[in-house]
Amino acid sequence: MSAAADRTPTPDGARIMAHIEALAAISESSAGLTRRYLTPQHRRANDQVAAWMQDAGMTVREDAVGNVIGRYAGDDADAPALMIGSHLDTVIMAGKYDGMLGVVTAIECVRTLHARGVRLPFAIEVIGFCDEEGARFHSTYLGSRAVAGTFEPSLLERQDDDGIRMAEAMVAFGLDPGRVAEAARPADELLGYLELHIEQGPVLDKQGLASAVVTAIAGATRWVVTVAGAAGHAGTVPMALRRDALTAAAECALAVEDVARSFDATVGTVGRFAVAPGASNVIPGTVEFSVDLRAAEDRRRSELSAEIERRWREIATRRRVEIDIETVHEESSVACAPRLRRQIAAAIAREQGDIVELPSGAGHDAAAMAALTDVGMIFVRCHGGVSHDPDERIAAADAEAGARILLDVIEHFDPTG
Amino acid sequence: MSAAADRTPTPDGARIMAHIEALAAISESSAGLTRRYLTPQHRRANDQVAAWMQDAGMTVREDAVGNVIGRYAGDDADAPALMIGSHLDTVIMAGKYDGMLGVVTAIECVRTLHARGVRLPFAIEVIGFCDEEGARFHSTYLGSRAVAGTFEPSLLERQDDDGIRMAEAMVAFGLDPGRVAEAARPADELLGYLELHIEQGPVLDKQGLASAVVTAIAGATRWVVTVAGAAGHAGTVPMALRRDALTAAAECALAVEDVARSFDATVGTVGRFAVAPGASNVIPGTVEFSVDLRAAEDRRRSELSAEIERRWREIATRRRVEIDIETVHEESSVACAPRLRRQIAAAIAREQGDIVELPSGAGHDAAAMAALTDVGMIFVRCHGGVSHDPDERIAAADAEAGARILLDVIEHFDPTG
Repeated sequence: MSAAADRTPTPDGARIMAHIEALAAISESSAGLTRRYLTPQHRRANDQVAAWMQDAGMTVREDAVGNVIGRYAGDDADAPALMIGSHLDTVIMAGKYDGMLGVVTAIECVRTLHARGVRLPFAIEVIGFCDEEGARFHSTYLGSRAVAGTFEPSLLERQDDDGIRMAEAMVAFGLDPGRVAEAARPADELLGYLELHIEQGPVLDKQGLASAVVTAIAGATRWVVTVAGAAGHAGTVPMALRRDALTAAAECALAVEDVARSFDATVGTVGRFAVAPGASNVIPGTVEFSVDLRAAEDRRRSELSAEIERRWREIATRRRVEIDIETVHEESSVACAPRLRRQIAAAIAREQGDIVELPSGAGHDAAAMAALTDVGMIFVRCHGGVSHDPDERIAAADAEAGARILLDVIEHFDPTG
Repeated sequence: MSAAADRTPTPDGARIMAHIEALAAISESSAGLTRRYLTPQHRRANDQVAAWMQDAGMTVREDAVGNVIGRYAGDDADAPALMIGSHLDTVIMAGKYDGMLGVVTAIECVRTLHARGVRLPFAIEVIGFCDEEGARFHSTYLGSRAVAGTFEPSLLERQDDDGIRMAEAMVAFGLDPGRVAEAARPADELLGYLELHIEQGPVLDKQGLASAVVTAIAGATRWVVTVAGAAGHAGTVPMALRRDALTAAAECALAVEDVARSFDATVGTVGRFAVAPGASNVIPGTVEFSVDLRAAEDRRRSELSAEIERRWREIATRRRVEIDIETVHEESSVACAPRLRRQIAAAIAREQGDIVELPSGAGHDAAAMAALTDVGMIFVRCHGGVSHDPDERIAAADAEAGARILLDVIEHFDPTG
């Protein structure tokens, strides 16, 4: 693309923010934002997004699982598409930007191209995924899995908290649960998948930069750990005779922190910590705690786990306690395609000079889409890293910068690069 | 006393254990042992103990607060008394020995003297205190405080969990709440107070010895501590940017342990530990935990507190968290009288050779009686240090050894020594 003249249309941060507010008003809860899969609010959000897509020059359809898709045709009507999107559903009492920003920004980019009268050698499809958070049926990446062809049909029988089966809810929404497989796209129809998303972490805010290129969506390991020592009277058992489960577990938690710090680009968190008996005058006999380990590379995560387990064995022996580890969740990392990372990095460099590369510690639809096509992600700074919270917020200037970067990637997109 | 001939009566461990079982059968709860102040079970226990006292040669009365007292007169009917006892009430779901062993053993010693036809130059009064545990009205050392003259009259208005006032319960029991002060004894009526009690800790069990002399009843400090950091997403906040309240509190707990270990004869315990928000994928923002510090010397306990606070200040600065300490309980230590410690130690040396001196980490009626007269305590080994639990147990041989030691102290008692 050529350098923009003064009157060349450009993405408008104010419109992105206005669209965000419009979607935020479509909520199941009166206070805060809650919008789950197959609810009337899902319907209204899809309809609103469809209207914006049409207004931006796209032809719109809803697929067999409830994703809304707008297509902006290329020079050649049959050209494969660069798909760009994120999700329209939310967690309970959510923020306004998680998911929605990616959809609204993609529409804004297409609107800009359309206003310029530009057609590209490939199509653009903007997709608003119907269910990434899984807040209603405890599903994971449901909308993007349907597109990637990895939807698990047994999910149709799953019930929400009111006992409504997903299949029933689909019918009520106007979908045919027997045809979900039709949402799957052949790989040769797509050139790749791009997703712009708020960082949901504090790194960009700390560094004073608007955007980052995502290197990978981290894999995760979750343990439930039980430390068994011996309960006793807090006044009568001398320190040397104790087998205190709490101080043993405290050392275990500090080992998680220390090892995760010493490794590059890994995080480790103890989030739950339950003590029994849990009285102020009783030496704890048992502690159960959670461990959440994430790393952009699966090999690193294995090394992290192994090093933590090694340190814990030493703690168990020295303190004469039992440490039992149950793995309750294990998910591999998903790498962003090097070619898309390069193209995104180049656009970020043109926008802000500095390139920041970050792994994503949170999951995204891109993780599911990677089963179908190459994926690339752009992070936009969010205030203080706060997310999944009504206090989630971003600056309009950052929304506009993110849109410029995404548009730049589209304009410079090299399908073979 | 002269060396015992073969037929000289001696304390009988089997009878002590049988009396323990008889008292254990007088329970408010069908499973486990629960016997609280001013209940029908308190009445039955007092009546049973009074019968044993009479059978052992004592004249029996119940005082104005509900303690049962048996007097075994000395050579001179007006001679002051060596008071010996412990408590007859229990915690909820208690063990059988805590308190009762001291009363039953004292009766067994008097029975032995009586069987031998021996009168001493002083009286012996055996007392079964009515309420040490405070399980009904959340009182502390109620029976012994009444005797020591430190009963707090406002307690009479306190209600139990059913809304019954202590004063009402006293009337129902047959007591006059207006006359509680009459339970107080003039100091010149007493030569001292002795209490035999299970250790409630594991030291004697570990050392393979039946008895120890108690040096002091430890003072205690209890804190409720709040550590405030910053909550965050377990996947997206890099280790270097965290202000994790849990790992900060873990360091604080380990500092309590380390400092208490490094001081002589002090203990420090973190027993409660509550994490918020407490989800496996969220970095903890706040932790509230309890600290219980005990030491036989108050000066040591102050030093212990100060050193822990010093370490915590360093942790708070380094980790950028707030640490708030609220003192919720503070109780001074009570020293056992050196003259009684010496006499008990001599009797233990005669019984088992080795003298073990231990502070008591738990509270006892002796702590309240120290306001009135010199106190001395004997500890008897309990299995594994388990107490306040239906699994609390002791060996009959140790019960008998404890009775021999107590009788030896009585026989060798030197009021001026």
